[in-house]
Amino acid sequence: MPLKINAAFTERVLENFIREEVAKSGFRKALVGLSGGLDSTVCAFLAARALGAGNVLCLIMPYRDSFPDEIRDAQCLGRILGIRTRTIDIGAQVDAYFAAHPTRSRVLRGNKMARERMSILYDFSAREKALVLGTSNKTELLIGYGTVYGDLACGINPMGDLYKTQVRQLAGHLGVPGFILKKTPTAGLWLGQTDEQEIGLPYPEIDEILEAVVEQRKSSAALADAAFRRETVDRVLRMIRKSEFKRRLPPVAKLSTRSVGHDFLYPYDWGK
Amino acid sequence: MPLKINAAFTERVLENFIREEVAKSGFRKALVGLSGGLDSTVCAFLAARALGAGNVLCLIMPYRDSFPDEIRDAQCLGRILGIRTRTIDIGAQVDAYFAAHPTRSRVLRGNKMARERMSILYDFSAREKALVLGTSNKTELLIGYGTVYGDLACGINPMGDLYKTQVRQLAGHLGVPGFILKKTPTAGLWLGQTDEQEIGLPYPEIDEILEAVVEQRKSSAALADAAFRRETVDRVLRMIRKSEFKRRLPPVAKLSTRSVGHDFLYPYDWGK
Repeated sequence: MPLKINAAFTERVLENFIREEVAKSGFRKALVGLSGGLDSTVCAFLAARALGAGNVLCLIMPYRDSFPDEIRDAQCLGRILGIRTRTIDIGAQVDAYFAAHPTRSRVLRGNKMARERMSILYDFSAREKALVLGTSNKTELLIGYGTVYGDLACGINPMGDLYKTQVRQLAGHLGVPGFILKKTPTAGLWLGQTDEQEIGLPYPEIDEILEAVVEQRKSSAALADAAFRRETVDRVLRMIRKSEFKRRLPPVAKLSTRSVGHDFLYPYDWGK
Repeated sequence: MPLKINAAFTERVLENFIREEVAKSGFRKALVGLSGGLDSTVCAFLAARALGAGNVLCLIMPYRDSFPDEIRDAQCLGRILGIRTRTIDIGAQVDAYFAAHPTRSRVLRGNKMARERMSILYDFSAREKALVLGTSNKTELLIGYGTVYGDLACGINPMGDLYKTQVRQLAGHLGVPGFILKKTPTAGLWLGQTDEQEIGLPYPEIDEILEAVVEQRKSSAALADAAFRRETVDRVLRMIRKSEFKRRLPPVAKLSTRSVGHDFLYPYDWGK
């Protein structure tokens, strides 16, 4: 069971990580965008334990009155954890933009919303002197399931090395309530959307393939000989390749002897 | 004169870079946010020569009717280069947000505007199938003079290895018109703002210090012995250190043997 985690150990590592990184950033507080889904809930739990509930602010950022259940769940989580939440409707900004630039594309609308949420998180980061915690998991990072400069943007990413199925294990250990655990994962881009339907594969299968390819460095041929269909494996590999640009900094044209993003690379806590 | 560039060579390298990166991205077109200032003008010139004027779209994104001269200049540049421009007012979105979350901070307002412009560029990137070209220069990247996930966000950054004074040399070579060349550099965050006033140092001096520290790896002691005041050198070094987070991906807590941003690092054109 290579995807099985030691949840107690993982919790300790991640809480230390959050504490250390928040301190390095010069802040004392953290900011989480809370959707009512599993990943952001786990992130809020970790942040509350790492920093104390009083040092965590969660922003709940619905588009108008879509997903009212998610909003209620997120607000309820805030009360359970004893952390401050603020509910901020992104409707006015999003509608103002699409009134001038109409589209029927749900993806365009979803991406604009994800970037508006990032923009609000960063505005509050400056107002509250709080570090923005990302909530993307390793599955999403590897297959590129997220909006670049939207939900993928953050100050630090505590859960970026945990596959979706591992986040679920950690959630159980942390005592995340059942009404969150039992939800079907959704990016909430439109009503009735589910991640697994949109990606076209169930998370346990994606994660097994990713773990075999990334951690075990198995070839797609070896995987196809094992339990997986060759075309499924190839599809997952294509998703990794096509989303590489989401996992790197924008390439800079190299002209000098020391270039940003090439060889001007200090530890990010250089001089601290 | 270590800051002196071979402008013809630099032009060739950057145009090849733009052509190759746009092709790798699967697009044929490029998108530039045009402010009417020097950097975005140079970027538009390079893009038009690299891809052909018909394959470049420039977005001019004013806040209401502030900076009317800049807008006119940017529109005029579009005509000179024969490239398509669209002028998109960000006022409605920005005002909708600050009506609900008022602030008197010009920095907060400027950052929200920079992120709204990024969000619109990326919306158009998807609509037009065009790669977003960044317009940050090396000086800005090194001292952190830019909004993270705002103007610093892009698909590729052609001029990220040219200091501000080198961009100016390149602009002369490219034939950038005098009405752009003679402007005082400004981020346009508020009326009357100038970069050099806000940073507190003239660009030629910042660039000489940066080049000595970054390319020549001189110590601040050695620099202080030379032409520069110790406190000026230290201030520039502090700006580099404090902005390191803007030049790196968000740290991911390492838990596995291969982690995104740590050791899961493929060439970004892996498999192309």
